[in-house]
Amino acid sequence: MPTARYCPDMPRYALKVEYNGAPFAGWQRQADLPTVQGAIESALAKLEPREHTIAAAGRTDAGVHATAQVAHCDMAKDWDPFRLSEALNYHLKPDPVAITACAQVDGEWHARFSAHERRYLFRLLMRRAPAVHDRGQVWQVQHALDAEAMREAAQYLLGRHDFTTFRSSICQAASPVKTLDMLEIEETTGVSGPEIRFHLRARSFLHNQVRSFVGTLERVGSGAWTPEDVKTALEACNRAACGPVCPPQGLYLAGVGYPDDPFS
Amino acid sequence: MPTARYCPDMPRYALKVEYNGAPFAGWQRQADLPTVQGAIESALAKLEPREHTIAAAGRTDAGVHATAQVAHCDMAKDWDPFRLSEALNYHLKPDPVAITACAQVDGEWHARFSAHERRYLFRLLMRRAPAVHDRGQVWQVQHALDAEAMREAAQYLLGRHDFTTFRSSICQAASPVKTLDMLEIEETTGVSGPEIRFHLRARSFLHNQVRSFVGTLERVGSGAWTPEDVKTALEACNRAACGPVCPPQGLYLAGVGYPDDPFS
Repeated sequence: MPTARYCPDMPRYALKVEYNGAPFAGWQRQADLPTVQGAIESALAKLEPREHTIAAAGRTDAGVHATAQVAHCDMAKDWDPFRLSEALNYHLKPDPVAITACAQVDGEWHARFSAHERRYLFRLLMRRAPAVHDRGQVWQVQHALDAEAMREAAQYLLGRHDFTTFRSSICQAASPVKTLDMLEIEETTGVSGPEIRFHLRARSFLHNQVRSFVGTLERVGSGAWTPEDVKTALEACNRAACGPVCPPQGLYLAGVGYPDDPFS
Repeated sequence: MPTARYCPDMPRYALKVEYNGAPFAGWQRQADLPTVQGAIESALAKLEPREHTIAAAGRTDAGVHATAQVAHCDMAKDWDPFRLSEALNYHLKPDPVAITACAQVDGEWHARFSAHERRYLFRLLMRRAPAVHDRGQVWQVQHALDAEAMREAAQYLLGRHDFTTFRSSICQAASPVKTLDMLEIEETTGVSGPEIRFHLRARSFLHNQVRSFVGTLERVGSGAWTPEDVKTALEACNRAACGPVCPPQGLYLAGVGYPDDPFS
C-alpha cells in the first residue's frame, strides 16, 4: 500500500466524509461489493489515474452511516483542498457520499492513528406506523421506552472496563479493555416522532460495541432487563451475557477528534 | 365515485397519511403511474376487494412529501380504526407511505371540503457539498441566503391578495384571490447543515403557490431581487412576473385543520 506510508513527495489531504450507509457493504474496500472506501478511491482514480488506498478513522459496518467520518489520501499533484473536495464530489455522484471538508495535512498525519477520539450517534425511533422519511436512517421499535432506566443502566458502562460482553466475536482489537467517556441518552422529537438518541464518545470502540450497548439498553428501556442486569452482564466478561445486538441503520459515525483539528 | 358521497350504510374513516413523494407521480391516481392515492386504494382493495376511491385534503404534485396529509375512505365493514390503520400499513409495504392515525367520522365529513386550513413546510438546504442524508427531502442551493431580506419580502405576501403571479397556468381554482395567514421563515440547522424552513398556512392554496413563493423568495435571499420587487410582482397579477418556481422535493404538506380535529 504505497499511499498509506509517508512519502515526502506526495501531499496528504484529510477528508471529512458524509455517507448514507444503506447501499454499501460497509466502509472497507471489497473486491465485488460497493463500499464507501471503494467509491472514494474510484473518484480519486478519476483525478489521478492509478491505484489509490485511503485510510479512515473508523471502518463502519454495512448499513452504518457517517455524518463526519475522516479519511486521508495522498496525491501526486498539489491540489487546492477546496478544488479537491469539489472534484471528488463531482465524481462521487450519484453515490450518497459527500466530502464536506478537505485540508492539507503533514505527511505524518494519519486519519486513524492520529485520532484520539471517536463520537457516535445512534437514533432509535419509537412509533407504531412504519417510518417513511427516516426509513433506513433509524432503528425503529414499536413501543415506548423508559429513558430514565436506560440512563441508570448506562452509568455502569461509563469509564474503563473489560468490554468482552459487548464485543463482536470477530473483533480484531488487541484488548477488550476500553474507556467509555460519554454515553448520553437524549429524548427528542424527530420528523417521524419520538426518538431516543444515544451520544457516545471514546478514544476507540470495539467491533459492534455501540450496537451491543444500544441493543442491551433497549431491553432495559422496555422493562425486560433491570439497570442492574447491565452491570451483571458487563462483569460477566462473556459475549453470551450481552443483550441482542441492534441493527446497523440507526448508527452514525458523528465525529473524530484529533489533537489539532485539521479542518478548523 | 360511490365512496365520495354520503352513504349511511358505509362507515367513513379519516386517515392521517405520511409519505415520501420521491417515487410517486403525485397524490392523484393515474392509470399507469405510481401515485400515493393509488397505493392506498390498492391497500384498501386488499382489505375489502372492490374499487375504492379516496379523497384527500390536498392533491400534492410529483415529488412533494407529506408529514400529515388527510384523506378519507368508506368501508363496507365496521373497522376498529387502529386495526384499519395497521392493516393498511401492512399492505402499503414496501411503499414509503404510512397511516399515522385513523378515526371514524360522520358520513358527512369530507377530508377536502371539511378542511378549513392547510399547512405546508418547505425545507431549503444551503451548502456546497451534495446532500446525503437529506437527498430528495430538501431543495439544495450552494450559497448562503439573507433570511432577513426574505422575511421583509414575505410581509408583502401575507393577507388577502389576487395571487395570479404565484399561480400555475394549469391551476383549476375558481379564483386567484386567496388569504395567506402565515409565512414564517425559520433559520435552523438540520442533519446536513444550515436550512431555511418556510412555514405557510392558509385556508387553501393555488396550484404551485408555495413553490412559486419559495422560488421567488430565494431570489430575494440571494440578492438578485429586492424585497420590494416581490411587492411589484404581486401587484402585477401576471404569471410572467413570478420568480422561478422551485423544485418540489423540499415541499411537505404538514397539516390540515378541521373545525373538529377527527384525530384529537
